Amino acid sequence: MNLKVIAFDADDTLFVNEPYFQETEQKFCALMSSYLSHHSLSQELFKTEIGNLDLYGYGIKGYTLSMIEAAMKISNNTLSIEVIGEIIELGKALLQRPIELLDGVEETLKALQGKYKLIVATKGDLKDQQRKLHDSGLGPYFHHIEVMADKQEVNYEKLLKRLEIESKEFFMIGNSLKSDVLPVLGIGGYAVHIPFHTTWEHEIISHKVNHPNFRTLDKISDVLEILL
Amino acid sequence: MNLKVIAFDADDTLFVNEPYFQETEQKFCALMSSYLSHHSLSQELFKTEIGNLDLYGYGIKGYTLSMIEAAMKISNNTLSIEVIGEIIELGKALLQRPIELLDGVEETLKALQGKYKLIVATKGDLKDQQRKLHDSGLGPYFHHIEVMADKQEVNYEKLLKRLEIESKEFFMIGNSLKSDVLPVLGIGGYAVHIPFHTTWEHEIISHKVNHPNFRTLDKISDVLEILL
Repeated sequence: MNLKVIAFDADDTLFVNEPYFQETEQKFCALMSSYLSHHSLSQELFKTEIGNLDLYGYGIKGYTLSMIEAAMKISNNTLSIEVIGEIIELGKALLQRPIELLDGVEETLKALQGKYKLIVATKGDLKDQQRKLHDSGLGPYFHHIEVMADKQEVNYEKLLKRLEIESKEFFMIGNSLKSDVLPVLGIGGYAVHIPFHTTWEHEIISHKVNHPNFRTLDKISDVLEILL
Repeated sequence: MNLKVIAFDADDTLFVNEPYFQETEQKFCALMSSYLSHHSLSQELFKTEIGNLDLYGYGIKGYTLSMIEAAMKISNNTLSIEVIGEIIELGKALLQRPIELLDGVEETLKALQGKYKLIVATKGDLKDQQRKLHDSGLGPYFHHIEVMADKQEVNYEKLLKRLEIESKEFFMIGNSLKSDVLPVLGIGGYAVHIPFHTTWEHEIISHKVNHPNFRTLDKISDVLEILL
């Protein structure tokens, strides 16, 4: 390998994210519990989110707007206006959650620093992702953060063009097979999967990945055996 | 000048933007006209937007959430739930407005293409800005698009670091003295101001700018006299 850039996914790779969304969803379901079962509420919310994904993209602001839209639809517009206010507050709370670093992240970055150009490659709201990176204290380890509109092959191709490197010089580390691994392998890069204990429904893929440029590792610090 | 990167602001520099927000605000005020005068409604909305700016950043999704929050506050939560649905639709319409290129943009980009690295440097929602650039047909003229969380000196410093260039190799073209000119001059770059006929209240500065690295031009194609 002749690598130039090591890219880290942020959410659930560097720090906790999906559990916060799940907690927020629990609170949304509690607010709406007079209308439907918890399971049906979650399904309706997910349907609204996915329906808006092309327009809103990823991130908390779009998620908040989708919660509002789903709540109105589920209640057939009989919802009390105060519930909308509570949903807006759920979104704002999510935007201000303190950062919890995942195990081994800092030692891994410390060991790789200076040996490669390290970047963060993440999707979501630009401002929110920059805030989280700043609050995490990890900012100084990274050359910069790339916030991507999506993580499909075309988005990674744009990223490589922007970085002015070839795909075989690019190594991606993340918790999502769908977003961090398959598209990177698809364009000829290297990818490592570090599973997190919970995954957003939209990110789940069911088949096994087998590829010479790919490894699954238990913990992030295991990449040091490959990269040092 | 020994320039490497020419950066173009997007909104109201490459294509029409602020008039669409103003039209949306008119519609918001029409929806809420039973509560307050048009002028007071605009003021309340602006206050809510600015109050949320640190949390939401720029862009249509945050603007939509601020319209909802302002409407609830203005009506003291007596608003009908259908109005919230109409506000969400105003936001979605804004996210789907067709692109209107400004005069001279395409000829300017065509003339500069291949002579410098051309980028778009804009704030707002990442996904929305990428959509607009794509729909504008201008994408192929640019090396890439940089969506910035804000346009203060610190954000431009990060941008230069990411581009791996020095400030004196950077030339910015935009319609906002506050966002496109002053911070760029402040870090040692070059800037050109192309005034647009209308400016968002938040972007207005009242003093005159006088600086050896700065020019105001009537139209975007006038930069060719400086750059070619």
